[in-house]
Amino acid sequence: MTAFDLFDPINKEMNIVETCLTDIIDTDLPVLDQAATHLIKAGGKRLRPAFALLGAKMFAESIEPAISMAVALEMIHMATLVHDDVIDNSELRRGKPTVKCEWGNRISIYSGNYILAKSLGLAAQYQRNDLLKVLADTSMQICEGEIKQMLSCYNIYQGLKDYMRRIERKTALLISVSCQLGAMLSKASEPEIKAIKKYGYYLGMAFQITDDILDFVADEEILGKPVGSDIRQGVITLPAIYALKHGSHRAQLAELLSSPQLCTQEAELIISMIAESDGMDYAYRVSNRFADKARQQLDLLPDAPVKSTLYEIASFISVREY
Amino acid sequence: MTAFDLFDPINKEMNIVETCLTDIIDTDLPVLDQAATHLIKAGGKRLRPAFALLGAKMFAESIEPAISMAVALEMIHMATLVHDDVIDNSELRRGKPTVKCEWGNRISIYSGNYILAKSLGLAAQYQRNDLLKVLADTSMQICEGEIKQMLSCYNIYQGLKDYMRRIERKTALLISVSCQLGAMLSKASEPEIKAIKKYGYYLGMAFQITDDILDFVADEEILGKPVGSDIRQGVITLPAIYALKHGSHRAQLAELLSSPQLCTQEAELIISMIAESDGMDYAYRVSNRFADKARQQLDLLPDAPVKSTLYEIASFISVREY
Repeated sequence: MTAFDLFDPINKEMNIVETCLTDIIDTDLPVLDQAATHLIKAGGKRLRPAFALLGAKMFAESIEPAISMAVALEMIHMATLVHDDVIDNSELRRGKPTVKCEWGNRISIYSGNYILAKSLGLAAQYQRNDLLKVLADTSMQICEGEIKQMLSCYNIYQGLKDYMRRIERKTALLISVSCQLGAMLSKASEPEIKAIKKYGYYLGMAFQITDDILDFVADEEILGKPVGSDIRQGVITLPAIYALKHGSHRAQLAELLSSPQLCTQEAELIISMIAESDGMDYAYRVSNRFADKARQQLDLLPDAPVKSTLYEIASFISVREY
Repeated sequence: MTAFDLFDPINKEMNIVETCLTDIIDTDLPVLDQAATHLIKAGGKRLRPAFALLGAKMFAESIEPAISMAVALEMIHMATLVHDDVIDNSELRRGKPTVKCEWGNRISIYSGNYILAKSLGLAAQYQRNDLLKVLADTSMQICEGEIKQMLSCYNIYQGLKDYMRRIERKTALLISVSCQLGAMLSKASEPEIKAIKKYGYYLGMAFQITDDILDFVADEEILGKPVGSDIRQGVITLPAIYALKHGSHRAQLAELLSSPQLCTQEAELIISMIAESDGMDYAYRVSNRFADKARQQLDLLPDAPVKSTLYEIASFISVREY
């Protein structure tokens, strides 16, 4: 079973979302068109639109009203991914700066701004202040999360709490808000909205922790990026935090992880130390606990044809290819 | 007389705007707080809030409803200025890359996104789809303008039309929209909104052309940046376009302006060639023509105590310290 099978109940609407995402970039500037389209295509799993639609389907038969919001949510996600295209100083030293007008970074930024503005404009069409406030607040909190992640690089003194807060902003928040907005568009009651929002939150936490584990263990082909890319960039995730506290090579690991140079040069050694420490299993247990909590929120909700799908997603996400 | 004297009729509200701008950054992340506050303080003249408030005051006695919009407009302007903080490849080669986590570019981007999201959230509070659509569309068009400016660097084949389209997106649009939104919040009629919007557009064009002239002639102290900084960055403005077509050193100038290296090394020679060509006077005449057109739009509008101020601004802007 893949994530796509799980989206079967909303398949028709997901296809419309995909078409909208392709059509929505409407500029006569070829560079912007290419950059923005590139960003949108880089999106991948479309989790956020899926959760908006599933959240809507929990409380209403027709989920057409949620489609525009699903598109807007994916675009907000895209706008936050803009930094992936930004060449930072560190990379530049290794890279080869081109000679001409050199607009790489700026084009990325403008594309991000463009997509963000477009998504909020799309959401504005609902003429509902409550929805827009949620979206605008979320966009800001995501920015904070991205900065927190950057600031925590190579910081071996970060604890469990720092990590949790970081992935909350980075991932859980937007998935949670996707569920919430979907439910709001299906006129769910306050307690129902609260429960589905929490479901999304716990699910998002489980998802990000599993994602962080996969960065250590998954096949490069599945991941689409080299194994250990977090470590190489100094991003210290849950398995590493565990290993720094409980692993048998704590002192050496701390020395390696606090050095940008060693993180790159000794990535494989670092990964083997973390693997040895039982850090992945620990993270897996934590991820599972969040998935449990997500399921518990579903227990509070009335039955709906799509409820079983939401249960299955929670089971699926915490064991993803691990 | 300074621009500040011209803002006398809206002095009280401008002070509130200033306080709001300082207070609105509300994050517990010190880096984001500093970066965003830095961006907001870099704003300078607060033209956009001023025009929103003046546009409102043309059609209503109480302009309090326009204050939040004035703040939002300045923040959108700030978000577009974010690129000023972005270190591009070209600058990096001269600069000294720091060793650590090197997050310079990304912090700028996130601060920009944060401010943009915040401004649209602020505007959403009006619960008026028409206002938000104008703002979101404008944000996108400004992105396009910034990219157009980048792409036109060192391009000696750009004509008058390219330049006009570029400054339209870069400056005239947001000033025009500021007037428009102010009027919309004061419940002006459709033809009135149209006229004040056009006033802002022509004024914005005049303003940017004068600004481009000042880059050649003004004192470094007044400008806050070195004379000829456009030329040094390969930004070809109206006086240069004129000189490329009519100047006596056309061929040599074309050679210089199309080379990033020569634009930096020979900036003074380039400036003297453009000055000799009568390019500044030509640009000044064009700027004045736009200011005239702005005044003509005011003729269409009913009398209001603030109308004389709007006339004066048009006269002031096209002769600014020139």
